[in-house]
Amino acid sequence: MRFELTILGSGSALPTSNRNTTAQVLNVLERFFLIDCGEGTQHQLRKFKLSFNHIHHILISHLHGDHFFGLFGLISTMSLVGRDKPLNIYGPPELEHLLWTVLKPQFEKTPFPINFHPLHAETTGTIYEDKVVKITSFPLKHSVPVWGFLFEEKERLRKINSDKISEYNISIPEINEIKAGGSIVRENQIVSNKELTFDPLPPRSYAFMTDTLLSRRYMELVKNTDLIYHEATFLKEDLALARKTLHTTAQQAGIFAHEAQIKHLLIGHFSTRYKSDALFEEECRKEFQYATAAQDGDKIIWPDNKRTTFLIIRGEETFELAINNEIAESR
Amino acid sequence: MRFELTILGSGSALPTSNRNTTAQVLNVLERFFLIDCGEGTQHQLRKFKLSFNHIHHILISHLHGDHFFGLFGLISTMSLVGRDKPLNIYGPPELEHLLWTVLKPQFEKTPFPINFHPLHAETTGTIYEDKVVKITSFPLKHSVPVWGFLFEEKERLRKINSDKISEYNISIPEINEIKAGGSIVRENQIVSNKELTFDPLPPRSYAFMTDTLLSRRYMELVKNTDLIYHEATFLKEDLALARKTLHTTAQQAGIFAHEAQIKHLLIGHFSTRYKSDALFEEECRKEFQYATAAQDGDKIIWPDNKRTTFLIIRGEETFELAINNEIAESR
Repeated sequence: MRFELTILGSGSALPTSNRNTTAQVLNVLERFFLIDCGEGTQHQLRKFKLSFNHIHHILISHLHGDHFFGLFGLISTMSLVGRDKPLNIYGPPELEHLLWTVLKPQFEKTPFPINFHPLHAETTGTIYEDKVVKITSFPLKHSVPVWGFLFEEKERLRKINSDKISEYNISIPEINEIKAGGSIVRENQIVSNKELTFDPLPPRSYAFMTDTLLSRRYMELVKNTDLIYHEATFLKEDLALARKTLHTTAQQAGIFAHEAQIKHLLIGHFSTRYKSDALFEEECRKEFQYATAAQDGDKIIWPDNKRTTFLIIRGEETFELAINNEIAESR
Repeated sequence: MRFELTILGSGSALPTSNRNTTAQVLNVLERFFLIDCGEGTQHQLRKFKLSFNHIHHILISHLHGDHFFGLFGLISTMSLVGRDKPLNIYGPPELEHLLWTVLKPQFEKTPFPINFHPLHAETTGTIYEDKVVKITSFPLKHSVPVWGFLFEEKERLRKINSDKISEYNISIPEINEIKAGGSIVRENQIVSNKELTFDPLPPRSYAFMTDTLLSRRYMELVKNTDLIYHEATFLKEDLALARKTLHTTAQQAGIFAHEAQIKHLLIGHFSTRYKSDALFEEECRKEFQYATAAQDGDKIIWPDNKRTTFLIIRGEETFELAINNEIAESR
């Protein structure tokens, strides 16, 4: 029952040798969602050993090149390796026309079915839902229309206490009912669901927010989210520039995470103008200590059996991320 | 007086960890021509330490993604780093509209001057000329219109014999006349140009030919070219597939080079279906022994002071390329 995020690109508009432009993959119980697709995303998928055959949903936050120029090549490659499964693309309405303008010289007809789901400015809405996950898009504030995405795992079924199965000789149809919250009757007495089950672990959640001016407009929506990836293009010394270009500083991202009472904050989309990436993490942690500067290749894992920690795999190392336990315990 | 080719991408449509899609840079006396621009070309320029600030001319052979999907990101990056010099793009006429469709959401107006030079199908013509180099485009044969490019260094000025300068007390204005082929008069006698000068070295030349079905239609044009980069997507065992997809086999590329009597052949655009890239070189050399399978990062250098060898820098090593000496000596 995996819930894992892989960072494919944590840089801003200018790719460098160790930070590519924005892209990441969220795996929710083996549904793989590609979020943004900067140039070179197909190269990063290979590098970090994620199969693009598993990707059936691509979400594009906005039409700045560092967030979507890799889409053309990825679709071409999917076609060349013989994809026939449908691909769902969620993004600004103009993206559909733009995509076909670029691909037309190459493909006389759609190489495989592509379902385009246009996002609508100024509205928050469910853009995907199945039995295990729901995705909500919400508008952010940038120089072009841009959306954040909130991924929420659905409530799990209740966990049956296995001792009770033999004690009450519970049948398989009854088990399914009990998991869904039902009770059973034995000797004309109701045996309550509460006696038969344990609470399931709380559902997991993740929000992606880039590029945007810091705004509290969408605070309520993402409040108590487990993990947020928020852009932090600038340091606070360049707050005026952040405002002018409609971006966020590392300090502001920390303030936002603190107010939103999340468990952990990942920051990224760093401008290349600064000497060290560590400066972003340092500045952000003054406001919210449970913050990490993302690196390309980072894999963040929500353990399936507890809600009090995240694991991060970075290169050869795996370690626990410090999390906001106040929140972790209250949920 | 450099004449150097850097291979940025030697693969075909599917990029791999060691071969990116097509792109290369030809430096002709410090004019840098970017030829094709597959996805990730800006990453490769950085990796192989070529400044994109020096690039004022980009030639796009055709509108298959592995030859131009990197153009969007490269132009965006050029803009972000403050480019103001004009950029010249040579390519299929549709490219101009396509480019602006993609860049429009990002740029309200042209970030810097872009001069678009549409290529015309079915014609061969000079697309660029200055005092040191001339570029000719010529149509190849593929599933979409595609052009090859021939780069020819211009005839150098004659080299003055320095002993003669003191012997005849030659003035600076006279030196310039002599270099251009003129003679001088001393004591009412003409001193011939031949006595005063050495022949300049023959001009250098390079042709780029991909993607294409093998065709002798353009043989005359590229005959005796120093170096040709020719696609060799398939091995001869897949000749039927090469014909069907309008590509060339390694064997055919070798036959073409032999007939064209060139000094050396570089092959590339290899399909990923084969186990080893060495197979292409092996097959090709049976027809034309002076052939090399290109690798990303290869730098081929035409020495300035002789015409009987090429140097190749590959990784940490520099070595001489075997060349067709019969041709080298006859020129």
